[in-house]
Amino acid sequence: MAVTVLKGTIVSAPALGQVDITENGYLVAEDGVIAGVFSALPERYAAAPVEDFGDALILQSFADLHLHAPQYPMLGTGMDLPLLDWLNTYTFPMEARFADTDYARSIYRELARELISGGTTRVCMFSSLHTDATLVLMEELEKAGVTGYVGKVNMDRNAAPGVLEETTEESISETLRWLESCGDFKYVKPILTPRFTPSCTDEVMAFLGDLAAKRNLPVQSHLSENDKEIEWVRALHPDCTQYWETYAKFGLWNDRTLMAHCVWSDARERAAMRDAGVTVVHCADSNVNVCSGTAPIRTMLNEGLNVALGSDIAGGDHLNLFDVVTSSIRASKIRYMEDGKQTPFLTVPEGWYLATSAGAAFFGEQPGFAPGNPLHAMVLADDALPPMPAADRFERCIYRRQKDAVRAVWSAGRKVWGTK
Amino acid sequence: MAVTVLKGTIVSAPALGQVDITENGYLVAEDGVIAGVFSALPERYAAAPVEDFGDALILQSFADLHLHAPQYPMLGTGMDLPLLDWLNTYTFPMEARFADTDYARSIYRELARELISGGTTRVCMFSSLHTDATLVLMEELEKAGVTGYVGKVNMDRNAAPGVLEETTEESISETLRWLESCGDFKYVKPILTPRFTPSCTDEVMAFLGDLAAKRNLPVQSHLSENDKEIEWVRALHPDCTQYWETYAKFGLWNDRTLMAHCVWSDARERAAMRDAGVTVVHCADSNVNVCSGTAPIRTMLNEGLNVALGSDIAGGDHLNLFDVVTSSIRASKIRYMEDGKQTPFLTVPEGWYLATSAGAAFFGEQPGFAPGNPLHAMVLADDALPPMPAADRFERCIYRRQKDAVRAVWSAGRKVWGTK
Repeated sequence: MAVTVLKGTIVSAPALGQVDITENGYLVAEDGVIAGVFSALPERYAAAPVEDFGDALILQSFADLHLHAPQYPMLGTGMDLPLLDWLNTYTFPMEARFADTDYARSIYRELARELISGGTTRVCMFSSLHTDATLVLMEELEKAGVTGYVGKVNMDRNAAPGVLEETTEESISETLRWLESCGDFKYVKPILTPRFTPSCTDEVMAFLGDLAAKRNLPVQSHLSENDKEIEWVRALHPDCTQYWETYAKFGLWNDRTLMAHCVWSDARERAAMRDAGVTVVHCADSNVNVCSGTAPIRTMLNEGLNVALGSDIAGGDHLNLFDVVTSSIRASKIRYMEDGKQTPFLTVPEGWYLATSAGAAFFGEQPGFAPGNPLHAMVLADDALPPMPAADRFERCIYRRQKDAVRAVWSAGRKVWGTK
Repeated sequence: MAVTVLKGTIVSAPALGQVDITENGYLVAEDGVIAGVFSALPERYAAAPVEDFGDALILQSFADLHLHAPQYPMLGTGMDLPLLDWLNTYTFPMEARFADTDYARSIYRELARELISGGTTRVCMFSSLHTDATLVLMEELEKAGVTGYVGKVNMDRNAAPGVLEETTEESISETLRWLESCGDFKYVKPILTPRFTPSCTDEVMAFLGDLAAKRNLPVQSHLSENDKEIEWVRALHPDCTQYWETYAKFGLWNDRTLMAHCVWSDARERAAMRDAGVTVVHCADSNVNVCSGTAPIRTMLNEGLNVALGSDIAGGDHLNLFDVVTSSIRASKIRYMEDGKQTPFLTVPEGWYLATSAGAAFFGEQPGFAPGNPLHAMVLADDALPPMPAADRFERCIYRRQKDAVRAVWSAGRKVWGTK
């Protein structure tokens, strides 16, 4: 049995709003699976080599549950444009370039490296509609040590004619070809990905729902991001009272479903998410950048919904989840100020929980460094900054997001990043 | 005559919302004063050495018009606390440490280095109440190449008893001692700094107003940041209808006055600022972090007020002005969404203008790389990122705030930072 012992200031989020800190603690994994956090090393591990990180922070690594891999090269551009212009001017021409698998490989290799070096070890990711580039993406993530789900995007209507489109037939046959080709990946698995309701014909939606059931596949898409989109969905599906029903009626609505944004989901739609066990992926920066709104995250949490975080690059402009945590906190403060300071904002421990434990739950993990979880962790050094109590150091490491501070990363038990 | 010639992709903001880009351009300074931007090098400079930065972006450097130097060590902590708790738990004990000038020197040296390496060459800064530490701060800024104004803080009432306080007598005598001692700095000058109205007795306010007039000194303070503060000021000065009048009645209200925040300034208060030529310093992140609100920047600009930007560390959690630009844009998008998309948000060129030209105006400079301005510039390399048109690269450099991308910085004509 291979034993991993990491020594340092161990911080974990075992429940929403709770942070456990063990100074001079030991985080132990057996064959890559967490055995526990200990303030003194148990006798049975006495022979194991200890990686001693001094008083550096040893943190859960991140789960980024919504991002668009082919938008990575355009990160930080087009932010002044309204959503539809932004899609047509920047996004669709950008995604179209991923017909070229060499281009895809160079971009995706860099993306995977940036994810790992920033402490993100689990993702749920949109690829483009291209099957081959999607396989390249999965390969590069797997090689770098990123785990999770990747989806070939389905978009067989209302796409970008002559730029980025697929027929219904292609959408179906390419999805099948993709699923046949990605069986060899160990850590990166397929997730069905209708881009969003307006992008998919009923035929494709029905096909995907059927596939999800037959092959027990998870599903990711977008929901209630902005008012124009919601109107559009209503016009396309007059039989559905609400947006979410356009997924539900095709069997794309269950506890293995991720829905990004949900900015405008009202009580009825939220109840539908809670009842089905759908996970909301909150993308705070993206929602401000493209002026969608501010999602009611506190209300969702109070109502018992599953909520995780996503960078949503390139609607979001930060790939780094430290940034996404602070953006989520700020977004919640905006809502707090808007409603006369009635709805409490997200605290730092709460924001952190959403970016780590809550996202990991989608992969079946227990919160925090729970025994039985695969080891997903990072070591963060802050020795260049003034000394302070561990709880303050933890908060500071989130807000200051110092580059190069992530010194080592473990993903699904393997050490996948290490400096010095 | 010393001629500086910088070659690259020259970007400047000559007016609000306008960006001029000269690819393969030359930015020329004579004895540290800008002569112009040229698409071909004029014959008269043919003999001058050219610093060729390829197609790297050559940008105006930043002006950060509101930040608290002694709060630098606590950057990114205490963000879950309400303003008053935050002040008492973190800020006042932190500032109290600056009674120790050795401590002050180590912190301020690092602060000055981080400012310059991030492209901030002009500041208006609050020190603590300590005269000696304030002089140390001015010295360290001057050495690093930061220019601008620094203020010893006056706070002779409602301070932190036993932790951080000064008597009225001390406040006055120490202010005079400080002014006598800072005559030798060339680039860093004193600015009178009543912390905010609740912190200063009428006697000190009158003294400072008198001093401002007699010695022609600028003034900086806080205004209308949050509702509780405004109520407090009203209680302290029942003779004043509005907060701003508490400064005006003591002669602390003119075109050399900076007022930070102004989140809740209504039409009358804004008119008073415009009429007097007061400059508003917008601190978007700080205003969200401590839940003050979102300042009506578009309205202020439409009404003709002077508006510049401030990082406001450590209420703000970013010292880097690239971040402050995007935060200001996001704050304006929040207002845009809140008012039914009526008030246009700040565009990227507008945000950039506020962080550069608008701040430089407080120091008497003309907008952009105008001839006659002292050379304040930075070179930003983005060759690690995908190639794209210069306008997109400019926007991307703001949003992506890549660390270590600032390769060289000039401040008041001198090269003060350079890597490689």
